[in-house]
Amino acid sequence: MKNEILKHLSKYTKITNELEDAITKSTFIESFKKGTILLKEGDISNECYFLLKGCIRSYIIENGEEKTIEFYTEEQVVTPSNYGKSTPSNYYLECMEDVIVSIGNPKLEKETFQKYPQLESLSRVIGEIIMAKNQDTFAQFKISSPEERYLNILKKRPDLIQRVPQHQIASYLGIKAESLSRIKKRIINKKIIS
Amino acid sequence: MKNEILKHLSKYTKITNELEDAITKSTFIESFKKGTILLKEGDISNECYFLLKGCIRSYIIENGEEKTIEFYTEEQVVTPSNYGKSTPSNYYLECMEDVIVSIGNPKLEKETFQKYPQLESLSRVIGEIIMAKNQDTFAQFKISSPEERYLNILKKRPDLIQRVPQHQIASYLGIKAESLSRIKKRIINKKIIS
Repeated sequence: MKNEILKHLSKYTKITNELEDAITKSTFIESFKKGTILLKEGDISNECYFLLKGCIRSYIIENGEEKTIEFYTEEQVVTPSNYGKSTPSNYYLECMEDVIVSIGNPKLEKETFQKYPQLESLSRVIGEIIMAKNQDTFAQFKISSPEERYLNILKKRPDLIQRVPQHQIASYLGIKAESLSRIKKRIINKKIIS
Repeated sequence: MKNEILKHLSKYTKITNELEDAITKSTFIESFKKGTILLKEGDISNECYFLLKGCIRSYIIENGEEKTIEFYTEEQVVTPSNYGKSTPSNYYLECMEDVIVSIGNPKLEKETFQKYPQLESLSRVIGEIIMAKNQDTFAQFKISSPEERYLNILKKRPDLIQRVPQHQIASYLGIKAESLSRIKKRIINKKIIS
């Protein structure tokens, strides 16, 4: 699994022997069973995750209803927005499948960055890339209709449709399950006609 | 203006003499007139901005129609999602008012971070804070109705309503201008009744 982390990080920088050593020594891998709740509303968050295998969902409970915010899959970073702060979480993190992650925490980060400044530099670069991607995702969401959002998932994350329940996909798109069913029928009809 | 940058950064870290020196020497301030387009669709982006004064809007043109993605105001960082990459921009950046910014570019960043590693560390910390904030904003947008989104702006960014045209606020909320008018009337009526 550590090799997979190195392979992933080599997309962003040349992995020198020194950097490989730093990454190997500061990486802690853990597994969680499907259904495990990693974070609850009201919790303080002292962990962030790099997903090596599986799927994690973030959601908010509003008026007793679960509203899915994000699905994270392989090679994505899950950083709760209250990570390392003293404020309680607004949302939940749930393992949708058996999950293998590399875990970070603020203390470990601080020690690691002091010892290996290159890792802090790499962390900044990756952070900027993730931020740019999130920015594009938000912009895309804002300017799209629900149908366009669904077509976008089919194109960019086709595996997701198979991996999680449809009512959660609907919630993730900001629509009701019935609306998603209608959208799917419309798409199938368009394919038959064209 | 440099004092304002130092004041802002002191929220995140203790500004030592060395750090103050680093910030002062690596800060370039520029002014732009209202209406200036800082970035166009198709442009390569080699500049990011820390807003000292004024308002910058990002928007996409889709089927000839402007769709507002974000309004940036004082103390916000504007980093185009293709910043420092060879990919063309999908969107525009426009100065909604006369603007004063501190400008960054990849070459300057690289030199500065090599010279003053503390600044890279600070940049990572601020990046994480911005990312967490963006994550919360996206989640909030996703789970809110247009009316809730408007009430949220009234609460969190009341100045914005006065600073930019209403049809752009509507677009920013992902709705038509007429829908925003209806929402406003509904809010006023609710206030009169309650």
